Amino acid sequence: MTDLLPTTPYRGTRDLLPQQMSVRQQFFHPLFEVIESYGFGRYDGPILEPAEIYEAKSGEEIANQQLYALTDRGGRRLALRPEMTPSAARMIARNLGSLQLPVRWYSHVICHRYERPQRGRLREHWQINVDIFGSDSVNSEIELFELIHDMMGALGATRDMWALRVGDRVLLESILRDIVKVPGDRLAEVSSLVDRWEKYPREKLAEDAEKLSLTSAQFDLLAETLGSGDEVLRAVPAEVAERSHVVRLLNSEARELVTFDPFIVRGLQYYTGTVFEVFDLHPENRRALFGGGRYADLAGLFTRQQVPGIGFAVGDVTLQDFLETHGLLPAPRPQADAVVIPLGESLTAEARRMAGVLRRAGVRTTTPLEPRKLSKELSAADHLGARVAVVVAEDEWRREAVLVKNLATREQHEVPVAELADRVTAVLASPAP
Amino acid sequence: MTDLLPTTPYRGTRDLLPQQMSVRQQFFHPLFEVIESYGFGRYDGPILEPAEIYEAKSGEEIANQQLYALTDRGGRRLALRPEMTPSAARMIARNLGSLQLPVRWYSHVICHRYERPQRGRLREHWQINVDIFGSDSVNSEIELFELIHDMMGALGATRDMWALRVGDRVLLESILRDIVKVPGDRLAEVSSLVDRWEKYPREKLAEDAEKLSLTSAQFDLLAETLGSGDEVLRAVPAEVAERSHVVRLLNSEARELVTFDPFIVRGLQYYTGTVFEVFDLHPENRRALFGGGRYADLAGLFTRQQVPGIGFAVGDVTLQDFLETHGLLPAPRPQADAVVIPLGESLTAEARRMAGVLRRAGVRTTTPLEPRKLSKELSAADHLGARVAVVVAEDEWRREAVLVKNLATREQHEVPVAELADRVTAVLASPAP
Repeated sequence: MTDLLPTTPYRGTRDLLPQQMSVRQQFFHPLFEVIESYGFGRYDGPILEPAEIYEAKSGEEIANQQLYALTDRGGRRLALRPEMTPSAARMIARNLGSLQLPVRWYSHVICHRYERPQRGRLREHWQINVDIFGSDSVNSEIELFELIHDMMGALGATRDMWALRVGDRVLLESILRDIVKVPGDRLAEVSSLVDRWEKYPREKLAEDAEKLSLTSAQFDLLAETLGSGDEVLRAVPAEVAERSHVVRLLNSEARELVTFDPFIVRGLQYYTGTVFEVFDLHPENRRALFGGGRYADLAGLFTRQQVPGIGFAVGDVTLQDFLETHGLLPAPRPQADAVVIPLGESLTAEARRMAGVLRRAGVRTTTPLEPRKLSKELSAADHLGARVAVVVAEDEWRREAVLVKNLATREQHEVPVAELADRVTAVLASPAP
Repeated sequence: MTDLLPTTPYRGTRDLLPQQMSVRQQFFHPLFEVIESYGFGRYDGPILEPAEIYEAKSGEEIANQQLYALTDRGGRRLALRPEMTPSAARMIARNLGSLQLPVRWYSHVICHRYERPQRGRLREHWQINVDIFGSDSVNSEIELFELIHDMMGALGATRDMWALRVGDRVLLESILRDIVKVPGDRLAEVSSLVDRWEKYPREKLAEDAEKLSLTSAQFDLLAETLGSGDEVLRAVPAEVAERSHVVRLLNSEARELVTFDPFIVRGLQYYTGTVFEVFDLHPENRRALFGGGRYADLAGLFTRQQVPGIGFAVGDVTLQDFLETHGLLPAPRPQADAVVIPLGESLTAEARRMAGVLRRAGVRTTTPLEPRKLSKELSAADHLGARVAVVVAEDEWRREAVLVKNLATREQHEVPVAELADRVTAVLASPAP
């Protein structure tokens, strides 16, 4: 006897059986509807991309440690995409001649990162990406933030459950340079320190700041300035405030959409202005669900034409945790509405015909494959979540009728074949037990 | 200046812009609906799987030449799945304790094979997989064949465009062994010769047969027997006919669903009985669209419990070619139904509010991001495929009204804000120009 292979999926990936898949589809589908209601068009691209498009822009962590890379038989170095933005940038650059900018695009894609699997983080996950390419207007920020509110609403989330936290790299850079006096060649590293602010205790941050040659006075000033909330807006020079989309946003009627948070940096290198995240406020699940930002020149790897943009992504793993924590996870949808059971093998073809009648009326219907007792079939129907059983039996069939059984109430009626579809859809339209 | 990276996708993969994606979604979506109407539940699984699950069962061509393999940082040998069946088998084996067999499962997944890209064949493609696991009844064949007919019907295809060709490895093996007298250790190779029958001229096949030590008399007998159509059914021994699902099928009322074709073998090693394909009858596109078959023991790699099954797959590349060839490809759906245009930047927030009113009424609506001339916005609206433009202008706004313009007829009316949603949905409900 040969050895059996293990049945567990590769670490950090998941099997989704129909019940689990039904849950995922039910929370993703309303999001697609909302995004499309804003006139975003769905696109798709390859999972395999040239590895260098990530090495150039996605940030060191992704390129050096998290990339699933391979070399094909033709010697090309490829990667499983760890994120969608570089692919989208490539596609935008490729089609600049025919696209009328700005464009609103979204995608629903699978991405791979080699990470240590943990709560909210797997190696393979699905994410929605939403982007506006080709506009530098703050109207893009406002539109995406309204969209995020509608998306959260579609999931059943109320505003006490989450916050849309917004920062601005334009402001942050000015704070670091003009106020804290960080030298130009340390700006990136100190930004990255700010990015870690919430995750580490104050002492650890102070230590790291020292390693970056910040004096303790500079560190305290940094903490104090960033911690001052809206005061930040008055602390930066006027010409900086003028360039900041976030300042403009906070001075508009859209201010109520967001929580200004100067500590927000987001990891990806290509962000150049507004950065934001949807943050779970539940005490046991404090983490970002959505992450996004603005980039002044996203497609620069691929074209000399400057294409500004803004976008965000939201993944299924963190989203499902959020919904679970807040009791918002939808129940799995049953796989079938009705079953048609022949009493005796000689009625198999007739049962199949009745199943066809129901399917054409929009009723998801199964028929038994193996001859089994009626009681067994009824229990299988219950297991499947079906609400109606149609029994094809000889006596009734001779009268061109069948038995229709409501599986919730256990009521059963003889129904003429000509009325079958109407009767079954009526039972299904009645409130579920 | 740094060099720009190429914008073309990796060879054999595709970018799908919103227009192209809309087409793909429109032909896949009705198929999901039909499959679900039969009570199949959708599942999903990892793209990355242990490489050995393909090396064992998928056939030499896939494992040795077509697998995208990689080794992760932990030293695990992985592959991008080239097909879904081994993953499904793994999942079935893993969940045997909780599943009530038989189960009806389907998936819509991306698969990767390193092939020479050509018409109908790419390196990355999406496919639907439909399987019944845990039943050895011919009712499974009949159900899947009815389903295939309904799927083709949902695509708008009529029966002159395609054929469901069905063969049986049980019959083929008997023909080879009992009639042509092929030695047991040559059965696999001669089956593979039969699989190539349609692709090569007779002389080439005869040559190959000679290499397999078939005499020319044996070769002629093989050609004659397989070419005799239904006569095959009478040529095989009675106990073979009894074991054949296809013989049973052809003797039932379901016979009209299929075209019996003893030459059908299908490439994958795990098929053990019924094998079938949906074949495009168009003279310029003669090829298989769907392929599938029955397996006596699919999950044998993972469990000692024997799980018979039957299933098929259909990919987007060949399907799109079929639809294109027969003039059945759907037109792309416009990205937006309506645009709301403020006349002047001071009305931007008002326009955004009206857009929200329309979205909540189910109208896919955009508003301009940059201040532009009305004529520019109207032409952008046309480009997007929108059918209605709502203009928010000062005079009308003071009267709590807006202008609603039908972009097809160019008619324009002043409409009170309270009636906006009704008026716009009425225009959209009227037949498209």
